[in-house]
Amino acid sequence: MFRTPLRPLFALYNLPGVCIRPHALTYTTTAMSSTKKARTHPPYELLYWPQIPGRGEFIRLAFEAAGVSYKDVSNEQKDGVQEVVSLISASSTGTDSNPPIFAPPALRIPGEGKNGSALILYQTPSILSYLGPKLGLSGEDEAEGAWILSHALTALDLNNEAHDTHHPVAVAKYYEEQKDEALKKAADFRETRIPKFLGFFERVLKGNEKEGEGKYLVGGKLSYADTTVWHVLNGLQFAFPKELEARKKDYPLLFETFYPSVQEQSGLKEYLASDRRLLYSNGVFRHYPELDRQ
Amino acid sequence: MFRTPLRPLFALYNLPGVCIRPHALTYTTTAMSSTKKARTHPPYELLYWPQIPGRGEFIRLAFEAAGVSYKDVSNEQKDGVQEVVSLISASSTGTDSNPPIFAPPALRIPGEGKNGSALILYQTPSILSYLGPKLGLSGEDEAEGAWILSHALTALDLNNEAHDTHHPVAVAKYYEEQKDEALKKAADFRETRIPKFLGFFERVLKGNEKEGEGKYLVGGKLSYADTTVWHVLNGLQFAFPKELEARKKDYPLLFETFYPSVQEQSGLKEYLASDRRLLYSNGVFRHYPELDRQ
Repeated sequence: MFRTPLRPLFALYNLPGVCIRPHALTYTTTAMSSTKKARTHPPYELLYWPQIPGRGEFIRLAFEAAGVSYKDVSNEQKDGVQEVVSLISASSTGTDSNPPIFAPPALRIPGEGKNGSALILYQTPSILSYLGPKLGLSGEDEAEGAWILSHALTALDLNNEAHDTHHPVAVAKYYEEQKDEALKKAADFRETRIPKFLGFFERVLKGNEKEGEGKYLVGGKLSYADTTVWHVLNGLQFAFPKELEARKKDYPLLFETFYPSVQEQSGLKEYLASDRRLLYSNGVFRHYPELDRQ
Repeated sequence: MFRTPLRPLFALYNLPGVCIRPHALTYTTTAMSSTKKARTHPPYELLYWPQIPGRGEFIRLAFEAAGVSYKDVSNEQKDGVQEVVSLISASSTGTDSNPPIFAPPALRIPGEGKNGSALILYQTPSILSYLGPKLGLSGEDEAEGAWILSHALTALDLNNEAHDTHHPVAVAKYYEEQKDEALKKAADFRETRIPKFLGFFERVLKGNEKEGEGKYLVGGKLSYADTTVWHVLNGLQFAFPKELEARKKDYPLLFETFYPSVQEQSGLKEYLASDRRLLYSNGVFRHYPELDRQ
């Protein structure tokens, strides 16, 4: 689910005066916080690496789709990344009554922990599972909630496999040090794994067509499974544009109904058009033309 | 989280008259089903490949630790594996009101679905998250439940990385076809990933020492995080015996307190001594001496 970030990014963090792009998304200042809905929620804080969508994006999309404000600490505070670095310290046994965390993303909720301290959670699917019912993104009943988590986990597996195409041998080494293996891994990913996953999500939509007409994976409203699958599809199109272009036609519900429908959802549409939506660079999804279909 | 099973195993399934080892573990005949506790639960059915622990083992351990009976379909019915094969058919859009499933393990609960049909769930962490509260294995409150899911997810990530040491390039090809890459991947896994994960779990135990004295990862009682981490530690010792033997001393809470304590838990102790506990073979954890420390 999470891997050590890449050395170039790590090196960047250690530079003094690194420029973290500031933006207006804070839970105290965003326009969303003035809505009644937002005020009923605690001050959620996302702790993740700055400047890349990465695995933090799955959490951001859930908040944005729900219209619930949050603080993106590393992208909003000049020294925010230090909080992330401190949180994953290899000597930490946890803070307050929270356990240590293995890797970001983490979710911090001031006041929600024991004795009024902050509650801190980690692992993308666990954070989504915790937030789902609170943000109205986990379906209508227990079964829908379980399926939504299952589908999100499947999309996150695909996300991890996309990452492994450029880091098949060692996550802490450079892509250039494992390029031969990456070429083999990417070929298998394109030829066997992409169609397996996309075919599966197409069938999930087809099975749910009666209720959602291909718009939603589960039931008749948006869930964090939808936002999670959407982002992976978006990232795949960035990383493997030729491969996806060639395959899209085989999955009409996924690419002609589901994908455009999700990105037109209220909240998501505005977010995706804003500068809060970070650009892909050296994260999970990377565009190396040699790894794409030739 | 799940990968295509290996071709040799698939080939085996297609042989007529394949011998599936029968055993006494059914929800109607096991001794456990005669207890009051077991009778309050619906007839849980695990659908997974036969004859290997695999990812199904995380579900089995939760049931066994809770003393709640279940039917292990592939290992108890002569044609049980056909139900698994049918469930993951590449043309399925789901059954009854359930979505299709991507890969086993799946959990089927007759009578718990819509209109009295069976409810079917998939994805190991999603099944554990669903069962956790019902089996009394998900802590005392919402925060503990979230941490338990997070730690289980982290252990399952380690499980996946262990799998990838022998299949770094293509999950559907033989190990022998990717042995050069496997040697590199396993070296990185042993040298950087194993200590990173084990060090993390040691710190989780240390942070929880006051309540559980190293016995539990979260709070003061057994959870599915404990059974999940335990099985991965067990599998690593099978697959990488020299590496684990050399490293054990660095994680005293994990190997001197936690590991023996979990396997002595009532329910688990009896299960682990029984023939229901399947042997490792060609699954996630494999002992290839050349991939271990030399």
